[in-house]
Amino acid sequence: MTSFSEATRVSPAAAGAAGQYQGTIVPGWDIGGNTHGGYTLAIAARAMLAQSGRSDPISITAHYLRPGRPGPVEVNTSIIKTGKTFTTVDGTLIREGKPMLKLLGAFGELGVGDADVSRVDAAPPELPPLDACVPPGVPEANPHALHQRIEARLHPDDAGFFRGKPSGNARMTGWFRLRDGEEMDGIALLLAVDAFPPTIFNANLPIAWTPTVELTAHVRARPVPGWLRARFTTRFVTGGFMEEDGELWDDTGTLVAQSRQLALLPKSSG
Amino acid sequence: MTSFSEATRVSPAAAGAAGQYQGTIVPGWDIGGNTHGGYTLAIAARAMLAQSGRSDPISITAHYLRPGRPGPVEVNTSIIKTGKTFTTVDGTLIREGKPMLKLLGAFGELGVGDADVSRVDAAPPELPPLDACVPPGVPEANPHALHQRIEARLHPDDAGFFRGKPSGNARMTGWFRLRDGEEMDGIALLLAVDAFPPTIFNANLPIAWTPTVELTAHVRARPVPGWLRARFTTRFVTGGFMEEDGELWDDTGTLVAQSRQLALLPKSSG
Repeated sequence: MTSFSEATRVSPAAAGAAGQYQGTIVPGWDIGGNTHGGYTLAIAARAMLAQSGRSDPISITAHYLRPGRPGPVEVNTSIIKTGKTFTTVDGTLIREGKPMLKLLGAFGELGVGDADVSRVDAAPPELPPLDACVPPGVPEANPHALHQRIEARLHPDDAGFFRGKPSGNARMTGWFRLRDGEEMDGIALLLAVDAFPPTIFNANLPIAWTPTVELTAHVRARPVPGWLRARFTTRFVTGGFMEEDGELWDDTGTLVAQSRQLALLPKSSG
Repeated sequence: MTSFSEATRVSPAAAGAAGQYQGTIVPGWDIGGNTHGGYTLAIAARAMLAQSGRSDPISITAHYLRPGRPGPVEVNTSIIKTGKTFTTVDGTLIREGKPMLKLLGAFGELGVGDADVSRVDAAPPELPPLDACVPPGVPEANPHALHQRIEARLHPDDAGFFRGKPSGNARMTGWFRLRDGEEMDGIALLLAVDAFPPTIFNANLPIAWTPTVELTAHVRARPVPGWLRARFTTRFVTGGFMEEDGELWDDTGTLVAQSRQLALLPKSSG
């Protein structure tokens, strides 16, 4: 089975223009047949990071244009500006000649800012021990291939929707790591911010499918090895849209990433 | 004095390529001499919206590359995809031949989603009446030209920093409208999400200047005429970065926009 770093590997296109990379959507990173959005974001971000010559993604925005399927992809990147602190990179992930993701990101070195000034008005989610949490990947509950590649374990309070008993709180919290504890870099955090079931599954609303329009992730620190704690919440299901806000914390209690995605609530008639 | 809609007007470049617009950074939309970021975002978004042929900005992300000064600007736009529901547009605002802002956005029609399904786990900020709130624009307190163009009035609890007494809460809440009550469209909301003093001014931290790396705004509804209520909060000043989350609510208590920006905490030695 391919590791995350292998499955997101990119290389400069052999005969391509400057900034063109090739990669592969590896089979098995899907949810119900569609390639997972966070996984394809990670492939594109890997290419943009390589083009930037920097060490870390800092802020990356992806617009989701078309669903994915396994097979070869290209990532076309171009540097918008190389500054002292950040390099801004434009990216397009292309599959079978069509753009699947369009991206814009800032890359740099984590630690470039003044980390001595600190103030956190939040805490990581309180989670029961791992073996008291619920893996969405148990085949009988959720046979999605993605869950052979990652380990996500939900807080029992947020796992009721598996049994048709949504909590009523538009929230998902739980533990996360890559399978076999593969170490996570900033690119892996871009997968993790999209790796939990949608908050809407717990909201007790008549909505089954909420396609993501746009996702922005901020990588705030490199995580120490080990499990991450994740919290996803939705406060506004209104006007035909909803946001989903994510936080990832590492084992030292450090915030390592923040995310927000905007999703459409499709009209049932449409 | 130019109105907001006049000050953000763009027109197709006379002899330009397809998707090229021209506009003007009008004098007077600055904070301490630098053109206001939300104002230049609005100019760029106006061009991208025109190019999209849609009625509303839905999600827009801007990376801030260089400070602005009054004078002519170009906005180069290109359509990435025109879908059934959204049109995804790339944009670059250029001043004196150099990119000042790089943008990526989705445009569409507000109301395209299923607005009948609704759930809001938040409330607009409770604010004293207008005349009990504090205008940052009174010349003796804050002689920024921008505040001749907009009316922002802070909750007294969040206005102590004007007198050197920050509240200790990394928060700004208050009322907002354009001068003379000019009606606000989705583009005006992009100005409003960046129009309050930084939350950090109330945080009691040794930081004076936090340059914005990236700002993403989601327009959720067109506001009814009248004052908006605004809330800006920062939960994570950590790792040398901070986020600032914004919410705008209209007079009916409807969330009309959400925003998040990532700012750098520069090292004082750097």
